[in-house]
Amino acid sequence: MNTTPRTARTFSPPVMEARRWLEGVDFPPERPLINVSQAAPVDPPPEPLRQIIAEAALRDPQAHLYGPVLGRPDLRDEVASQWSTAYGGTLDGHNVAITSGCNQAFCAAIATLCTDGDEVILPTPWYFNHKMWLDMSGVQATPLPAGAELLPDPDEAARLITERTRAIVLVTPNNPGGVEYPADLVQAFYRLAQDRGIALIVDETYRDFDARPGAPHALFADPDWDKTLIQLYSFSKAYRLTGHRVGAIVTSPARLAEVEKFLDTVTICPNQLGQIAALWGMRNLSQWLAGERAEILDRRAAIHDNMPDLAAQGWRLMGCGAYFAYLRHPFAIPSNDLAPALMREAGVLLLPGTMFQPANSPAGAREVRIAFANVDRDGITALFRRLAGPGWPLAPAPDSA
Amino acid sequence: MNTTPRTARTFSPPVMEARRWLEGVDFPPERPLINVSQAAPVDPPPEPLRQIIAEAALRDPQAHLYGPVLGRPDLRDEVASQWSTAYGGTLDGHNVAITSGCNQAFCAAIATLCTDGDEVILPTPWYFNHKMWLDMSGVQATPLPAGAELLPDPDEAARLITERTRAIVLVTPNNPGGVEYPADLVQAFYRLAQDRGIALIVDETYRDFDARPGAPHALFADPDWDKTLIQLYSFSKAYRLTGHRVGAIVTSPARLAEVEKFLDTVTICPNQLGQIAALWGMRNLSQWLAGERAEILDRRAAIHDNMPDLAAQGWRLMGCGAYFAYLRHPFAIPSNDLAPALMREAGVLLLPGTMFQPANSPAGAREVRIAFANVDRDGITALFRRLAGPGWPLAPAPDSA
Repeated sequence: MNTTPRTARTFSPPVMEARRWLEGVDFPPERPLINVSQAAPVDPPPEPLRQIIAEAALRDPQAHLYGPVLGRPDLRDEVASQWSTAYGGTLDGHNVAITSGCNQAFCAAIATLCTDGDEVILPTPWYFNHKMWLDMSGVQATPLPAGAELLPDPDEAARLITERTRAIVLVTPNNPGGVEYPADLVQAFYRLAQDRGIALIVDETYRDFDARPGAPHALFADPDWDKTLIQLYSFSKAYRLTGHRVGAIVTSPARLAEVEKFLDTVTICPNQLGQIAALWGMRNLSQWLAGERAEILDRRAAIHDNMPDLAAQGWRLMGCGAYFAYLRHPFAIPSNDLAPALMREAGVLLLPGTMFQPANSPAGAREVRIAFANVDRDGITALFRRLAGPGWPLAPAPDSA
Repeated sequence: MNTTPRTARTFSPPVMEARRWLEGVDFPPERPLINVSQAAPVDPPPEPLRQIIAEAALRDPQAHLYGPVLGRPDLRDEVASQWSTAYGGTLDGHNVAITSGCNQAFCAAIATLCTDGDEVILPTPWYFNHKMWLDMSGVQATPLPAGAELLPDPDEAARLITERTRAIVLVTPNNPGGVEYPADLVQAFYRLAQDRGIALIVDETYRDFDARPGAPHALFADPDWDKTLIQLYSFSKAYRLTGHRVGAIVTSPARLAEVEKFLDTVTICPNQLGQIAALWGMRNLSQWLAGERAEILDRRAAIHDNMPDLAAQGWRLMGCGAYFAYLRHPFAIPSNDLAPALMREAGVLLLPGTMFQPANSPAGAREVRIAFANVDRDGITALFRRLAGPGWPLAPAPDSA
């Protein structure tokens, strides 16, 4: 019997840990810190959206009062309507709940599926907050190594399913790997989940920055999609609303009745101004968002453009997309030692691959994640110049010479 | 082994259930619904506070971006400073974390203390969201019946403590009972918790509406307070910010390092505009808040003023304070049947006492909660006139004739 309190079963938040490395460190004015540790826009939302929030604060009394636990009906309906068009399915507002950010959507989903001793399959490298919530929930995260291409294998997943497995989680476009899972790969996982009577959770936080035209998968076209699929979404990245905490969960009305218990108990309701902003963004910012996507795709191209110099030093680009580049580094020290050293010696804050892998596993020691949405094309060039050195004395690993 | 998913172990949100009773029911214009089911201000914050929120939305880029997981340092410091003065202790900002509402503060506290099979003592009638979170956490809620005066007995609590007990929870001023726990009662619970090495969680959501002058307890005066005490607070009621989701947890820095894991995983950070509003409120609205308190105390007096007519019908006031009046009703039917009947026949929506008690217990069947912050003095008179009847045909219980 495990009597350890829930939070003591997991690790400290990696992004906060990385921020703490910065304490007491000075960066010279001629070489300021390049912070690519957190996936977040650094600019506020566009002016018209800020106006809408300000107007609501001033003139809409409801913006300050409790709303429904599952979110504002107008926003739920808007998500359902836009999703029906985008994914070629039939959703209505009763398939959608609004959450206080996409992390909360994941927590709620797991609470409806699992209890102590259950298992959930997560491709590795995984998103650390998923692992943390499973730890705190007493649920075993079963790692599914995604391999050098960062694409998990459904057949391998099938072999990991036990009678205690309740779900498989996919993040696409992937955090931390940046890869966009092909539609047929997502479909194969869906069929597997359906066959084995477990849930498929698809976290599409970065869907608005997918490089591919059209729908990234066809799951919603199955009339029975809501028996198997739980889709998660965030409004934070598309409309630069990270400080407002608005996300969504898309699934069956029956599961949302369970989600309602969790959300009511944990936050009562999502905050109103964030929902008002998200709704206005969805209705009015599609052109603007297309420009944002083009900018992110240009930064992604800048990563590729800058890779040759880094590759000459022994680095390899494993995945690149959404907000992330995932790289294999050439040094003899593990990434959890490399990252603080890079911060001190190169003025670059990034997250080590070990933060996205099971503890005490050798996996991730040769990998790092760069969250490149925070830096423009020039910044990416500067970042890569710093990573390529010279200027900081780390020996390359023997095998990367 | 319990394999039921976490949400399936608990009940649906009572406030949402009561709202659903309203579906399809028409209230005539001459007798509109009086809704005293939820503890929430019905008016938005005062105009200057709304201006501050609007200004921040327009001019402060940080208001739209991620902030620290444990909240803004300025707000944490302000709580610590005002608490030090109000309670006569020494707190600093490292004792305070900001949460997405006070419910989340409770959830975080329990996650740092408990795991499956642990026990937490809750006086009954209890606050249902506390019970729901314990259910979902696999923690047994041990009921401590508070008796006719609604004051729990520390000696009785002592007898309920087992080796799996991790905390005692007090809500003062109490929801649903409305009673303000005397300082020496709170102190006795504190000593008990200290002696037995468990935590004392004190939820002071309604502290700003306590009728007593001065500090409601002396716990913070103990230099070791943070080894035992976990205090919870909400900015929602004082500054009418229910739709913004801002609360606080006050405890040891070591426990807050654990709280940080929970908050990071569940919401990443509290939303920024709500925190900005709470900080400005704390710094600028103390006079205004004194007026709000006076108004609530007047409504409380109106409850007492109106009681004689109701008492003549067999009703009894068990507790009255903060936002709540807790009454014993005179009817032969249980409160969970009475409440929907009152809604239909008297146009009054209140919550039955059964919602604040263990399921299948006879307790609460003769009780109802009125959340009177939603109605002014005239509204309270109208409410009591409806409750006193005549106009709806329910037979009184034999013992109340």
